[in-house]
Amino acid sequence: MAAMDVISVIRTKRDRARLTDEQIDWVIDAYTRGEVADEQMSALAMAIFLNGMERDEIARWTAAMIASGERMDFSSLPRPTADKHSTGGVGDKITLPLAPLVAACGAAVPQLSGRGLGHTGGTLDKLESIPGWRALLSNDEMLAVLRDVGAVVCAAGDGLAPADKKLYALRDVTGTVESIPLIASSIMSKKIAEGTGSLVLDVKVGSGAFMKNIDDARELARTMVGLGTDHGVKTVALLTDMATPLGLTAGNALEVRESVEVLAGGGPSDVVELTLALAREMLDAAGLKDADPAKALADGSAMDAWRRMIAAQGGDPDAALPTARETQVITAPTSGVLTRLDAYAVGVAAWRLGAGRARKEDPVQAAAGVELHAKPGESVTAGQPLLTLHTDTPEKFDYAQQALTDSYDIGPAGTSYEPNPVVLDRIG
Amino acid sequence: MAAMDVISVIRTKRDRARLTDEQIDWVIDAYTRGEVADEQMSALAMAIFLNGMERDEIARWTAAMIASGERMDFSSLPRPTADKHSTGGVGDKITLPLAPLVAACGAAVPQLSGRGLGHTGGTLDKLESIPGWRALLSNDEMLAVLRDVGAVVCAAGDGLAPADKKLYALRDVTGTVESIPLIASSIMSKKIAEGTGSLVLDVKVGSGAFMKNIDDARELARTMVGLGTDHGVKTVALLTDMATPLGLTAGNALEVRESVEVLAGGGPSDVVELTLALAREMLDAAGLKDADPAKALADGSAMDAWRRMIAAQGGDPDAALPTARETQVITAPTSGVLTRLDAYAVGVAAWRLGAGRARKEDPVQAAAGVELHAKPGESVTAGQPLLTLHTDTPEKFDYAQQALTDSYDIGPAGTSYEPNPVVLDRIG
Repeated sequence: MAAMDVISVIRTKRDRARLTDEQIDWVIDAYTRGEVADEQMSALAMAIFLNGMERDEIARWTAAMIASGERMDFSSLPRPTADKHSTGGVGDKITLPLAPLVAACGAAVPQLSGRGLGHTGGTLDKLESIPGWRALLSNDEMLAVLRDVGAVVCAAGDGLAPADKKLYALRDVTGTVESIPLIASSIMSKKIAEGTGSLVLDVKVGSGAFMKNIDDARELARTMVGLGTDHGVKTVALLTDMATPLGLTAGNALEVRESVEVLAGGGPSDVVELTLALAREMLDAAGLKDADPAKALADGSAMDAWRRMIAAQGGDPDAALPTARETQVITAPTSGVLTRLDAYAVGVAAWRLGAGRARKEDPVQAAAGVELHAKPGESVTAGQPLLTLHTDTPEKFDYAQQALTDSYDIGPAGTSYEPNPVVLDRIG
Repeated sequence: MAAMDVISVIRTKRDRARLTDEQIDWVIDAYTRGEVADEQMSALAMAIFLNGMERDEIARWTAAMIASGERMDFSSLPRPTADKHSTGGVGDKITLPLAPLVAACGAAVPQLSGRGLGHTGGTLDKLESIPGWRALLSNDEMLAVLRDVGAVVCAAGDGLAPADKKLYALRDVTGTVESIPLIASSIMSKKIAEGTGSLVLDVKVGSGAFMKNIDDARELARTMVGLGTDHGVKTVALLTDMATPLGLTAGNALEVRESVEVLAGGGPSDVVELTLALAREMLDAAGLKDADPAKALADGSAMDAWRRMIAAQGGDPDAALPTARETQVITAPTSGVLTRLDAYAVGVAAWRLGAGRARKEDPVQAAAGVELHAKPGESVTAGQPLLTLHTDTPEKFDYAQQALTDSYDIGPAGTSYEPNPVVLDRIG
């Protein structure tokens, strides 16, 4: 490839033109090799953030990130592969019940997951609250778990889309995260390189999500579905509500406990509904149209798959989960109907209590988080518990409470409440 | 100052809001100290480039850069100080005759100058083609030359606006140079920190300048005049033509030779006209309204000041200047009237011949450059020399000639030609 000039690439996007295919291929490769410096890539990322990219420009950018590393191949597996990706929300523990559920119905679920950063939790952080469980597997170990159990949740290897890995870390510290072209290419480059045959995207909309409004979420979903389809991955997206937290918990061990309730046939109705909706999409995309995920939850086969999946990665599914050293209860100041409980505020509070990290090298507390005692639409009585805060660092209670100022509304008794549907739209 | 969050500063400008005074003060200070990383500052610079800054925001940004370092003080000098800054052009050797000329008329001229980068030359590179001359002076040496001679041209010390020094180098490699707020604050922070009492800005307009059109140049000039005035520096700006090179030379020793011709009472008319126009503005701003710069050129007093200024910095004003190892002549292909000779093309050719540098650590050739044998408006005859290329590296002739493709137009004999005035406008 001919050497190019990074400044001319930056200027092209700065001046609102389309990057050429050659510019994209060169700049992604040169950045991966370290020839293009971080300060140059961050200027380009800001120019992309502010001036956008065309559809085919995003496609080329994604292809170049895939080409920066290895590609995995699951074609030797006897089952069809189905993967899911969520754009991240508060209390979003869906991967935990979903992966074993879909495996119990006959698909293979290779879930390469991440850690949490900021107010949204990370699937790996949640599972690591189970004593013994480990996130780091070699490619061979991953394939073995997938073959034996049908589902694996683990960290992505360094070989997969290394350009994205580097760019993702850079965007995180340079204010260039919330960009549809950059989010779509980041997610899809990893998922396509991973080699899944089908993919269901859970695009969150609302205060607790990256996408605050449904038009942006729809644009992101359409972009990602287009990228997947172009690369031969059967891709659909559900737009789902993230105005209020999912379920009744936000925090690592707290969310594992709630996920096990769902696998045992109980759990909060919104978590059950979303788990089943995503499971049906995944099974459908994998060609398993006759599978019945509701039955697999009811008959214990999903729970069996969960126990085998946890054990295969060194975890003890029967071990007691960690509990927090201290708790603090926030009570309802008046009686009436809870009409709002803000997802973002709860996410920030859980993060400040120790469930999340400010920098990627920070540790997380397994037991920290927020427990909800009521959801929007439910009646509350003055003095009843509304939220319980859990932490091992009680000096953070005040800081967490600050995040919850104005985080909820209670209307007079009899106030009518129109709940958002769990699934807002489907693109695919 | 309370610790702030760099990402929230970047997001503020990214999302098109005004940076607060506290954000500006903090980010400039934290960047100077290395707490804000280059990749964060470059993302902010791109956001400023694309979303702009308000007038008072630029003023605060400039003040913060001044506050990042020391300020000089010329109040002990018996003469009023007058400085000049040019935004840079092709063949712009004006500082060389101007500084001694204004000194000969009674003002003190502290010219902190830079080196060339890209297609525009640097004043220090030009003077360094004089055997023995040195650009690096201590603050005390600088004051002594200013006191004894009345004019000094030297490199800015590291203590002056260090935030700008760092940011200028960063902008150069991240495609964030051509931004009015960033250019204005960079120039004015150095000039205000330098401590001059009055300042004349030469804002170039045309193909060889940063500002390609007069509206942008006017906006830049107004911004800088406002910044200077707010800081108590009497500031005026001339907008001057840079569609074609100034004078008949572009290159280091070539331009010194032409400057000495001007000081001797000769030289190209455009160089003489601009030198006198700027000298009159500087003397007027310094309160020396009765000075007569034309007389100081004619009577040899400007030349005397030049000789003393060069000698005071170790240079030999009588030494032979270096000449290039090889030359190549480009002849006129047809007879007629030269109607265009593009400044940018000549600047790039001179740069490729070795007069300029691609990276700031590169050396420059003293003798390399381009000599013009005709200027727009003059008649030429087929086969007559149009340009002479000078270099010590003749393997670069072809590369330099490429830059000159389509760089000039020759119209039929009798074609009428309306020259641009040397001075296009005055702001102040």
